[in-house]
Amino acid sequence: MAEAFAYGEDVLLVEEGKGRTFLVRLEPGMEFHSHRGTIAHDGIAGQLEGTTVLSHIGRPFLAFRPRVGDRMFKVKRRTQIVYPKDAGWIALSLDLRPGARVVEMGTGSGAFTILLAQLVAPTGRIYTFDQRAEFLENALANIARAGSADRVEAGVLTAGEPFPVAGVDAVFLDLPTPWEAIPAAWAALAPGRPLALIVPTAEQLKESVRALREAGFALIETVELMERPILVREREGVRPSERMTAFTGYLVSARKRLPGPPPAGAVG
Amino acid sequence: MAEAFAYGEDVLLVEEGKGRTFLVRLEPGMEFHSHRGTIAHDGIAGQLEGTTVLSHIGRPFLAFRPRVGDRMFKVKRRTQIVYPKDAGWIALSLDLRPGARVVEMGTGSGAFTILLAQLVAPTGRIYTFDQRAEFLENALANIARAGSADRVEAGVLTAGEPFPVAGVDAVFLDLPTPWEAIPAAWAALAPGRPLALIVPTAEQLKESVRALREAGFALIETVELMERPILVREREGVRPSERMTAFTGYLVSARKRLPGPPPAGAVG
Amino acid sequence: MAEAFAYGEDVLLVEEGKGRTFLVRLEPGMEFHSHRGTIAHDGIAGQLEGTTVLSHIGRPFLAFRPRVGDRMFKVKRRTQIVYPKDAGWIALSLDLRPGARVVEMGTGSGAFTILLAQLVAPTGRIYTFDQRAEFLENALANIARAGSADRVEAGVLTAGEPFPVAGVDAVFLDLPTPWEAIPAAWAALAPGRPLALIVPTAEQLKESVRALREAGFALIETVELMERPILVREREGVRPSERMTAFTGYLVSARKRLPGPPPAGAVG
Amino acid sequence: MAEAFAYGEDVLLVEEGKGRTFLVRLEPGMEFHSHRGTIAHDGIAGQLEGTTVLSHIGRPFLAFRPRVGDRMFKVKRRTQIVYPKDAGWIALSLDLRPGARVVEMGTGSGAFTILLAQLVAPTGRIYTFDQRAEFLENALANIARAGSADRVEAGVLTAGEPFPVAGVDAVFLDLPTPWEAIPAAWAALAPGRPLALIVPTAEQLKESVRALREAGFALIETVELMERPILVREREGVRPSERMTAFTGYLVSARKRLPGPPPAGAVG
Repeated sequence: MAEAFAYGEDVLLVEEGKGRTFLVRLEPGMEFHSHRGTIAHDGIAGQLEGTTVLSHIGRPFLAFRPRVGDRMFKVKRRTQIVYPKDAGWIALSLDLRPGARVVEMGTGSGAFTILLAQLVAPTGRIYTFDQRAEFLENALANIARAGSADRVEAGVLTAGEPFPVAGVDAVFLDLPTPWEAIPAAWAALAPGRPLALIVPTAEQLKESVRALREAGFALIETVELMERPILVREREGVRPSERMTAFTGYLVSARKRLPGPPPAGAVG
Repeated sequence: MAEAFAYGEDVLLVEEGKGRTFLVRLEPGMEFHSHRGTIAHDGIAGQLEGTTVLSHIGRPFLAFRPRVGDRMFKVKRRTQIVYPKDAGWIALSLDLRPGARVVEMGTGSGAFTILLAQLVAPTGRIYTFDQRAEFLENALANIARAGSADRVEAGVLTAGEPFPVAGVDAVFLDLPTPWEAIPAAWAALAPGRPLALIVPTAEQLKESVRALREAGFALIETVELMERPILVREREGVRPSERMTAFTGYLVSARKRLPGPPPAGAVG
Repeated sequence: MAEAFAYGEDVLLVEEGKGRTFLVRLEPGMEFHSHRGTIAHDGIAGQLEGTTVLSHIGRPFLAFRPRVGDRMFKVKRRTQIVYPKDAGWIALSLDLRPGARVVEMGTGSGAFTILLAQLVAPTGRIYTFDQRAEFLENALANIARAGSADRVEAGVLTAGEPFPVAGVDAVFLDLPTPWEAIPAAWAALAPGRPLALIVPTAEQLKESVRALREAGFALIETVELMERPILVREREGVRPSERMTAFTGYLVSARKRLPGPPPAGAVG
Repeated sequence: MAEAFAYGEDVLLVEEGKGRTFLVRLEPGMEFHSHRGTIAHDGIAGQLEGTTVLSHIGRPFLAFRPRVGDRMFKVKRRTQIVYPKDAGWIALSLDLRPGARVVEMGTGSGAFTILLAQLVAPTGRIYTFDQRAEFLENALANIARAGSADRVEAGVLTAGEPFPVAGVDAVFLDLPTPWEAIPAAWAALAPGRPLALIVPTAEQLKESVRALREAGFALIETVELMERPILVREREGVRPSERMTAFTGYLVSARKRLPGPPPAGAVG
């Protein structure tokens, strides 16, 4: 059964045509203001997703529940965020699933934490750490707004310190110096489980991969993803967009390898 | 607590160095054969993930549990599969989460179905349809091997027929003629909920987007993703790989818009 | 012997650091004005290329002779221009060389004409046509400024009309409807010689390639080129730029094939 | 006037349909052998470009004069070559034109030398150097085959040694250690004139750019070019190719800046 929008809920308002989007928390008696006019929250509450609402000057807006990717883009940003295109790749690399326990080092603005928390619900748990206490506060507000606060534990941790959890299913590093956190990541991971990280420069990439090798990680793989928008227009025709985001980071994945002599696995 | 490999479980064996991978179901008394020698399944069972096992000629293999992306690549293929890079993007577009009810039209080899089933576990449900009964059988075997059979219902359905489910949280189309299934997708989706599709050619893209517009979808967005492997070598240096997969398909996402006159949402 | 800048010559002035560029024709007694101050042309004339000149407020500008790519970017634009990255590919496809006689259909702003004229100098000849007389005038001014007027003949011609030249070494089409000009291109080309064209959409590409096949062209090849800027910074590290031009057009090349039954080329 | 193929000339034979190409020097009485049959050179000599010739088993081949890009691909390779897509960009960066005098350091197999020699004809001159005498011999044979020997002077030179020419219009470096040759390049260039180089790794790129800055080059610009083939098929539709060359090198261009205090260029 489709549920109508309720007070206290976030609504994504999308300008018809132009496509600019706004994330609005519905509150009784409040108004949404834009350069295309004003909309009373009371006129949205009680409607179904996908409804068109008109501003007081008659301009149409579409009302949707935000998807997790919308929430990631709409966090209050105090840092660079992980882009959805990269987030999807990382989520697969980390083999995320309901119930998983995951460490994130480098909470940043919490955008990726929101995705992690969605994918491990309802019984999983995200342990997220940042070196900067002042960023954590903002991130936790973003995570709470997304409704994921109860699955997330956050703390201040410096790269190089041990993680205060063990036997976790996956680790994600989004740090200026991921190599400093790699030994702690190895220690915290359950045997064989995946790690992923993102870095912007070739130098950081090289140092990270070196640290992964030294710590005993295997299946180390690096890629970059380019997402190109395509314009599909009935009259003008189909063509790629003229502009695109060229680069958002190098993505690395790896798996924890156990040290020590191999067991007698060979055939008698 | 890390669990050891058990009989009946799939193990990903990875050649040390070269990186070729094999998906092996452990059975008592059986052997894995490769050009790098033989390994007794009994020598793997009871070990932890991340262990190195030696073949009878002393060549090392790493043993891991397959990630969902590994399973997608390792399905017995009778069709083109959705690549993990695209799958991650689609998963975010569809706002997948535990408990979701999702329709997939175009089961193919079941690779993407396996991801869908992992992400909606434990209480969600995947309804997957294909026009070709003979492909469904193979797909269901792939899905069962991945341990997801209990969350997946499959059936034969021709593009153009109504979907036998309603009020679903998301629809994914992977068909030669997705436009034929778009009205049925609209009917099956709960208000406001997302649809995604993948097509290989500009012509199919144009016809699909036209059908989405005519059916009343909004927020229609098209992209392509390019994944480029990066070589990170200590001595030779950091550089992109010389070869890459250039194209796997155009990805489209959209959301179901409700028809009819907009409600009186404007401020008094 | 390096020659000093002379009056009547174009100089490329480049802001130190920021890199904004200005193309300035030196005239006695004139001044160049920018938000970083004023420079007397008399202070540039007589200097060598590569010199740094200071504005009246002490801001440095570098003075260079414009390269052909700079001239292409600096034409007075009344149309989309062919980008240098594409121009290089096209120049090779057309096998340009000194002395060649080349037809261009779609003069536009004359940017590519300038490159053509440079590469066929001193004895070659460019025949360039446009459907719009008002664009030709602007293009010819751009071409004259680049010093290439004596190698260029221009005229108004509608796509579909025969070209008023024959036996040319190469043809380049930059038109909304290149397919209309392809029979004329075939007729004008010497046997075996190359044609190239650029189009922005998949639909135009398809129709152009169809027309090439029907007219009897062979070795038809289509590519797109993506140019990504790389940032090389001593402290921050090496990484691709965050933004790039995603698409400038599909590039097609082909060669004129002779019709009729193949000669008795086989071994007795 | 179109000229017929003559003995002593190179002909590009292209398999109809499949598109495999062969570069064949016509000699009286000789035969071309392929898995699609045999063709007598005498059956090609005297024909026009663009003609179809049949092998002794009736398989068609198209006969064309090779374009410069064909020659670049067809050199006898003892090294990695500069790809045509990159060559076009470099040619524009170097502002090549008839009459130019150009230094190339890193002759390799001579592929790029062939392009240089074509573009500076008839009066220009290419000075090309390589550290390995044994490669020069092969390169000179390739250059001679392309008919450019009279415009090319070649010699053995170690990176770091001064170039034996001065006041040149452009310098191109294709070396494992271009930074070692950059001071010599600066010394050999006329004031303000361009240099370009190509390197495969991020580390080489960084060291090269550092050396350019230290030597006093300005307008330093780095890009990479990705060329993606597009399939244009009447029935199956338009789509990018599934495979592409992902990376061939980082391209750098720069211009020689004069040292010393800026002249009094400011307005009184």
